[in-house]
Amino acid sequence: MPTTERNTPIDVPRGLKGVVVTDTALGDVRGLEGFYHYREYSAVELAETRTFEDVWHLMFHGTLPDAAGRAAFTARTAALRRLPDDVRDALPAIARSCALAGPLAGLRTALSLAGASAGFRPLYDIDADRRRADALAASALVPTLLTALHRLGQGLAPVEPRADLPYAANYLYMLTGQEPEPARARAIERYLISTIDHGFNASTFTARVITSTGADLAACLVGAIGALSGPLHGGAPSRALDTLDAIGKPERIDPWIRERVLAGDRIMGFGHPVYRTEDPRSRMLKEIARGFGGPLVDFAVQVEERVEAILAELKPGRELHTNVEFYAGVVMELCGLPREMFTPTFASARVVGWCANILEQAEDSKIIRPAARYIGPPPPRPVPAV
Amino acid sequence: MPTTERNTPIDVPRGLKGVVVTDTALGDVRGLEGFYHYREYSAVELAETRTFEDVWHLMFHGTLPDAAGRAAFTARTAALRRLPDDVRDALPAIARSCALAGPLAGLRTALSLAGASAGFRPLYDIDADRRRADALAASALVPTLLTALHRLGQGLAPVEPRADLPYAANYLYMLTGQEPEPARARAIERYLISTIDHGFNASTFTARVITSTGADLAACLVGAIGALSGPLHGGAPSRALDTLDAIGKPERIDPWIRERVLAGDRIMGFGHPVYRTEDPRSRMLKEIARGFGGPLVDFAVQVEERVEAILAELKPGRELHTNVEFYAGVVMELCGLPREMFTPTFASARVVGWCANILEQAEDSKIIRPAARYIGPPPPRPVPAV
Repeated sequence: MPTTERNTPIDVPRGLKGVVVTDTALGDVRGLEGFYHYREYSAVELAETRTFEDVWHLMFHGTLPDAAGRAAFTARTAALRRLPDDVRDALPAIARSCALAGPLAGLRTALSLAGASAGFRPLYDIDADRRRADALAASALVPTLLTALHRLGQGLAPVEPRADLPYAANYLYMLTGQEPEPARARAIERYLISTIDHGFNASTFTARVITSTGADLAACLVGAIGALSGPLHGGAPSRALDTLDAIGKPERIDPWIRERVLAGDRIMGFGHPVYRTEDPRSRMLKEIARGFGGPLVDFAVQVEERVEAILAELKPGRELHTNVEFYAGVVMELCGLPREMFTPTFASARVVGWCANILEQAEDSKIIRPAARYIGPPPPRPVPAV
Repeated sequence: MPTTERNTPIDVPRGLKGVVVTDTALGDVRGLEGFYHYREYSAVELAETRTFEDVWHLMFHGTLPDAAGRAAFTARTAALRRLPDDVRDALPAIARSCALAGPLAGLRTALSLAGASAGFRPLYDIDADRRRADALAASALVPTLLTALHRLGQGLAPVEPRADLPYAANYLYMLTGQEPEPARARAIERYLISTIDHGFNASTFTARVITSTGADLAACLVGAIGALSGPLHGGAPSRALDTLDAIGKPERIDPWIRERVLAGDRIMGFGHPVYRTEDPRSRMLKEIARGFGGPLVDFAVQVEERVEAILAELKPGRELHTNVEFYAGVVMELCGLPREMFTPTFASARVVGWCANILEQAEDSKIIRPAARYIGPPPPRPVPAV
């Protein structure tokens, strides 16, 4: 006798590993080749040649803009940066209550409020243009929310966004109150572009599951932010810098690394579950760091060389290279970002990728709802009296 | 040449239908038998014989409490109902900003704030006792948040919870400011018990995906609330009542229903994707409604009889019976709940089920991360100049 409505439960690997949950035209990662792409373009080439707004346009609309399209899209998104008054008024309380839980908890709360305030409606109740407008509004607002919450947490007044600055420059401006040097703004812009998407992952999947219920865009993004806040989800660029700090000076590199490797510890900033070659993001970020130069960069390059040499000696055959965390941390430090803003900075770019996934998923109409297998004692057991 | 790191992508039905994503000892639905259970007990029998707190204890601890255990658990959860000051202070602003988006958007925001304020930590960084304590705190707080947001939306002051009332009676008390009649409190308690869990569904799955990243409990619940807010997720008990209102009087039943059925419209409150027999929750709620009696109940019973007869005539062979929405709406109306609180009332019970699923998932350590298949044009296409 069947115990559920599902006649043939389908067994798959734990954690749905390798299970194809959707088709996508947004991009992919080719781990064996050390290559990843947004739509049909190399993500790294986009980061090297295009503006953040160009790639945002590519993800949302499917095409790279020409000069006129860039100007229009840049102006349109810049106009969406300002906080609505009710959201601005609520941020000090959110910053206080989320002070311990951290910036992603603050963003989760503030974006939930902002989405409700903006009147985001269930995704299946609105057309594709309206969904894209909501997605533009949300992704344009995230940097403002994150930088305002950070400044409030530091006892500083938020800095109003400037519509005349490009996305990345405005991000640094809202964080510091100072217009950034062009080289720093461009370095962060390249990092942000390279971070918009990266194959399928747990937060992107979360956003798609919530989308498949027809919920509003804020509901989807808030779930994705929650997933990103999970330590198993991904990296934390500040950890690799913490490792550099812990090593401290060149002569301590070898003993420090050997001790960790022999103890079986993971070295933060090295190794990736997908890439078997160098992480293409790491290669780009290392080049950016070298463009800045200075003692931190020299030290990071030394540590990288020694870690690779020691790993090759102690763990022969393992291909362990720097991952995106390692030089992303160095670049963000060089650009003056405080460490607690490293992961939020990542999130401010990734929200564009989540939105693109939400927009794509909303074209489908099938709810994502797998099954569970009951393995407890067989029911019904009579309920005992108290 | 493989295009991704996954050598063998696994194809499964759309929406992961039937794909077993986890084992569970929490319960199941046997659609063909019209039966569902929490652990090894019939959910309906639990609703008929036990308190909400007993079943909450069953879901969190795995066992039904004895008399001493009931008293201790009831006292412990009652003590967790009061809002922290910072959360209470933030609620008026949340209620204002979420006025249009509705009570689930308000709950999503307020619970995100409350979890951060309570210092919930990543689930894999804390032990099972601490996880359960967080889950108790969150689920005890949800009714207070929902009723306070509702009253603020009505221009009324929130009513402080009373620790001397059982869960369901306190819920109605916080909503109205009046201690409810015992029969009404018991009717809502039975409804709430029957709503704690119901097999695997999109919000429960969302909570488990976020849990699998190791995020904190609030991140998981906020995602689940988002999924529940999606129109495809599940029912809305107020819709069935709206149908009763639209029909209006007995002589309009037949023409109204025939017109809708012939037009191919779904009749709200009838039919269920899983149950092929009567929905066991519907059976119980109908009995509760009949215990109250009165014109609304008589009319609902008449409508049920005529809809089933007309569907049997016009759609022979389809087994379409009332689902949980139909009599749940009637019972909540009889108990004085405003319609906009029907779905939030559902959520206030379901949060216990989500938490039980989160606690179970947190015993696993495998991230839930399926794959996507890239179907766009083959990369890399050179990035054009602007």
